Formats: sequence, structure tokens, C-alpha cells
Amino acid sequence: MFEKILYPTDFSDVSKKTMDYLAQLKDAGTKEIVVLHVIDEKVIEAVSRYGADSSTTIIGLINTEARDEAMKIEKKLRESGFKVKVIIETGVPLKEILKVEEREKTSAIVIGSHGKTNLEQILLGSVSEMVIRQSKKPVLVIKR
Amino acid sequence: MFEKILYPTDFSDVSKKTMDYLAQLKDAGTKEIVVLHVIDEKVIEAVSRYGADSSTTIIGLINTEARDEAMKIEKKLRESGFKVKVIIETGVPLKEILKVEEREKTSAIVIGSHGKTNLEQILLGSVSEMVIRQSKKPVLVIKR
Repeated sequence: MFEKILYPTDFSDVSKKTMDYLAQLKDAGTKEIVVLHVIDEKVIEAVSRYGADSSTTIIGLINTEARDEAMKIEKKLRESGFKVKVIIETGVPLKEILKVEEREKTSAIVIGSHGKTNLEQILLGSVSEMVIRQSKKPVLVIKR
Repeated sequence: MFEKILYPTDFSDVSKKTMDYLAQLKDAGTKEIVVLHVIDEKVIEAVSRYGADSSTTIIGLINTEARDEAMKIEKKLRESGFKVKVIIETGVPLKEILKVEEREKTSAIVIGSHGKTNLEQILLGSVSEMVIRQSKKPVLVIKR
């Protein structure tokens, strides 16, 4: 069930806490972890409304930061003995997560969850909750 | 993480599918499984409005059925080599699940999820979704 894990991360604290649990999955048979970070296209759209120079700079920085953070995670997971693949996509987080799950044929998703924090999340569900609803594979939810 | 599992079950098909995954958790270090079935107090209240004889009979049957179903699960899980404890409570499912989680000090919850099926579930969240939101421990969600 846990052989090839999809680990979607937004680099938040709760997502980083999930790393401690990922390490424990070695004994549960996990061999490979696909680390996925989705740069929310809404963020890119918002930034694109700034002046051309600023927006290009900001988007460049976002991409660099995303890569740097993902590489730190990759390094840690490799040190824990996992095979690791890093994927960074720009798009709608839920959609990209489900797309990568299908493409990479991962056997389970491990995801951090904040619990509900604001009205929008109560009404619409957080990304985690939508992933839990829509994924066809087991989802291990790590709580804040 | 998976040493002592709380497995809340409503005896539905998706909940039974979860059994296949529970068996796999042996390799992930699971030693003990607490099987919890909550008889929804709303059901008991509704039935109590019938004539005294019928309602007593029906409630008796519900309790017997719950015990029988739970014992079948207990038997299967014991055959898979787990230590098993069966708990049957009457009350509000979410509340009882969280109470037993705390009382039994389980390390994770394994729960089946139907995905959303009707308007009430979309608005209020299913029992599974509420458990995922409110549990402080990792929750492994098995999909239909």
C-alpha cells in the first residue's frame, strides 16, 4: 500500500511535519517518494498584473524558491534511504496532484492537513480535503 | 505510527474494503486494532417512537446485529495475527470515535470514505471527513 508515495507539499509547517511521518514509512515498505509542489496559478496570475519587470522578477524568485525548498526535502528523504523524484508544476493544486498521482501510479498519498481555519475552507474544503475526496488511492492524513 | 489502530466501522461495503488494507498494516508495525462500531443515537431515537413492544424488539435486534458483525470482524483480524478489542457504543458517531481514540490512546485511525454522495454530506461533511478534521492523530483514509 505504501510502496510509492505521492507527497504533495506547499512547504507549510504542517507539510514539513509530515516529513517525520514519511521517514517512519520506510518500515511500512515505502521505497520511492514523489515530492510534488504546485505553484498555484492564482498566485502567478495575481503577480502578473504588476509591471512587466517586477512580475518577471517575482515569478523567477518563486520558481527558484520552490526548487530550493524541494531540493532540501529531496536531500533529507534521500538521506532517509528513499528513492526520490521531485516534480514542480504550475496550475490548480488539486488538479495537478490528481494528475501526477495518475501519471506516476503512486500507491498512496501522504498529505498534511491544517484542519479548518476559515470560512472558505469550511465551505469549500481545503486542498487536502479535496484530495481526500477525489483520490482513488488511500490517503494518509497527518495533522498539525 | 501504526502500532495501535482505531478502526471505526459502520459495517458498510467501503468499511469492509478497509479490512483488506488493515491486514497489510501488519508489515507497517500494527500490533493491536480497536474495532469501534457506534450505533447512531438518532436511529435509536427514531425507533423509540414506535410502540413499546416493537421498539424494544428492534433495538434488541440492532444491538445483536452490531455484536454479530463486530465479532465477524474480530475473528478475521485475529486470524490475521492482530490483538483485537471490540467496542460498541451508542451515541453520536463522531463524538464516540474521538472519545475512544483518546481513551484507548490509539496511534492512528484507519477509516473508509465514500466520497461525497448527497447534499447534506457536501455541506456538513461525512463522519469520515469530520474525523479527519478533528482527530489529532494521523488518519489513513481508504477510498471506496
